[in-house]
Amino acid sequence: MPEKITIASGMIDRLGSPKAVFKLKYNGQKIEREEAVESNDVAVLSILDALKDMHIIDRFEDIVAFGHRVVAGGEEFKKSEIVTAENLEKIEALSEYAPLHNKIEAYYINVFKKLVPKAIQVAVFDTSFFVDMPMENYMYSIDMEDYKKYHVRRYGAHGTSHRYIAQRLDAIIDGGIKDKNVIVLHLGSGASISAIKHGKAFDISMGFTPLAGIMMSSRSGDIDFSILPYLMRKLGLTDIQDMIDILNHKSGLLGISGISADMRDIEANEDTNQRAKLALEMYRNRIVKFVGSYIAEMGGVDAIAFTAGVGENSAEVREDILESFKFMGIKIDHDNNQVRGKEIKITTDDSKIAAYTIPTNEELMIAQDTYKYAGLLNK
Amino acid sequence: MPEKITIASGMIDRLGSPKAVFKLKYNGQKIEREEAVESNDVAVLSILDALKDMHIIDRFEDIVAFGHRVVAGGEEFKKSEIVTAENLEKIEALSEYAPLHNKIEAYYINVFKKLVPKAIQVAVFDTSFFVDMPMENYMYSIDMEDYKKYHVRRYGAHGTSHRYIAQRLDAIIDGGIKDKNVIVLHLGSGASISAIKHGKAFDISMGFTPLAGIMMSSRSGDIDFSILPYLMRKLGLTDIQDMIDILNHKSGLLGISGISADMRDIEANEDTNQRAKLALEMYRNRIVKFVGSYIAEMGGVDAIAFTAGVGENSAEVREDILESFKFMGIKIDHDNNQVRGKEIKITTDDSKIAAYTIPTNEELMIAQDTYKYAGLLNK
Repeated sequence: MPEKITIASGMIDRLGSPKAVFKLKYNGQKIEREEAVESNDVAVLSILDALKDMHIIDRFEDIVAFGHRVVAGGEEFKKSEIVTAENLEKIEALSEYAPLHNKIEAYYINVFKKLVPKAIQVAVFDTSFFVDMPMENYMYSIDMEDYKKYHVRRYGAHGTSHRYIAQRLDAIIDGGIKDKNVIVLHLGSGASISAIKHGKAFDISMGFTPLAGIMMSSRSGDIDFSILPYLMRKLGLTDIQDMIDILNHKSGLLGISGISADMRDIEANEDTNQRAKLALEMYRNRIVKFVGSYIAEMGGVDAIAFTAGVGENSAEVREDILESFKFMGIKIDHDNNQVRGKEIKITTDDSKIAAYTIPTNEELMIAQDTYKYAGLLNK
Repeated sequence: MPEKITIASGMIDRLGSPKAVFKLKYNGQKIEREEAVESNDVAVLSILDALKDMHIIDRFEDIVAFGHRVVAGGEEFKKSEIVTAENLEKIEALSEYAPLHNKIEAYYINVFKKLVPKAIQVAVFDTSFFVDMPMENYMYSIDMEDYKKYHVRRYGAHGTSHRYIAQRLDAIIDGGIKDKNVIVLHLGSGASISAIKHGKAFDISMGFTPLAGIMMSSRSGDIDFSILPYLMRKLGLTDIQDMIDILNHKSGLLGISGISADMRDIEANEDTNQRAKLALEMYRNRIVKFVGSYIAEMGGVDAIAFTAGVGENSAEVREDILESFKFMGIKIDHDNNQVRGKEIKITTDDSKIAAYTIPTNEELMIAQDTYKYAGLLNK
């Protein structure tokens, strides 16, 4: 930073296992090795040590700031913030909204703090982008006390990605997006659609939790909640959490197709497997309905952007969705739509609504926020 | 029948109480009296006796057919049917989908059968109209086995009303609706929106149960189902049914406004009560989103119709919703929109989408079906 150049990138897969996979890319080199990473502390040390081994840094202290993605920011965190002791407590307390994420994220921030005490830790929240949506859009039609006392509202998720795509659209579109309505389709294994009106988040398909919204790889998205007690009786479940787990892990594309949660498998089998075909039709249907609902509540749309795994790579999904809006004057540029994983306009110049494929880059957003909120911008 | 003239109409309010209210209208006369109607059997006798007392019939046997509204028809009943012993068993078995309704409806059919054995009983199902929607629209994105084994799917509700309005639209619109896309907004204390493509039901906002869909008087409509376990913990509930009851009876307009489940009260207070205003904004927002989603999945819309209590009587609700579609070329006829409870076109002739107020008449639909399926048509 501020050149927005990735020096190195890496990840640890199967963390917690004696055969975790450590991956690092740097300067054309690629490390991929199996190693025991049985704890979060070891994971952090592995990463920092590897950076030293590859001479990306000489000492841990060379790193002046760390950026952390945090899933739940509640209503408290309207933007990214330096992680003070007070903020760290808040992040932990917000675990209630993201039990699988916030606690572990807070733990990691602590480990990095201990190992590199002088570095600034910045938390970038997945929900911040959506905190200031219009109240009628984030409120649920339940008892008002449930919002006031227990903070039940639409928080959304994938905010860092939606914000990044909005930034790209603002750069790509003539005159930016400050007077425009755009819709961002983040279609990965988790998937969400946002409505962005005049540059600000207006609505998001994920809700109180990331289980809501469109059909996903293994998550159901929105369903009639009365199905829960009915199926619990039928399946002999007494704990609602077991039902939620099924709706989280055994539903969506996987539940309908019966073959896979991966869109590539579904597409490969759609001609021979009825259930794969149905899964695709339902997937398209749910997305078209959300896009239509956002067009209506914004009073029209100027641009639509596709991002994340499926959004960037499936020409078929993009085409199916855009075809459904032909009645509104969308004209697909079929050649450009075949391009994978590259920022490109996929509608013709006379299309009434512009559409784009835009690879997401949450890491860049986090780096930018970290740079900014750590106060490095003015140094 | 077949002149479609209402000879008499009536109802019993507060059934089960020693001070039930019995109402009957006939030939300009109006009876309204308090009487003890403490059982379903007494209710039926009260009605039949009143018909005799007022000389509408001489003997019970003068009635040749009874039409019954039945809430849940499952996938078995694709149309109205004569209630044979076998069908009665099926209706009872379908109680699982409508525990508050089907059992009691089956009971009533039996009582009428016993009292007037020669009359034909016809069951008109609230779900039949929606049974043959496209599969991708009625399936939930959950485990396919839950559909195959336990029949979890979108059944919808208010089908008799949506079918009646579709019939009216077919009569009103030049060339009928067989090549057109229409959307019907049944906005009562329970409320649902249907998409009708080329004369056939295409989608419906109510789902597996009538709790799904848009915000209603005291029902939440669709919410993130993950809210259920969260709120159950917060509210100290262990039985999910208690949570469902709250979402059924203490949510929607009532939950948000805190003052009333009745749209008239909400509208009367919107200028002075912030929560009433929010309730109205949310109500409008949910409807606009559903209408937008149906426009998208049908690939456009030709006509929109408002019906039921709020739909027929609230000029403000109709106007707010139609205003949101100005971007699609809807032009409201503000004078006609002020008319209450009368069949009338409420858009101008140059409006790109036509809109209507159409009072619903479920009783007429039931009478027509009864007349037809009882075989009286050919007599």
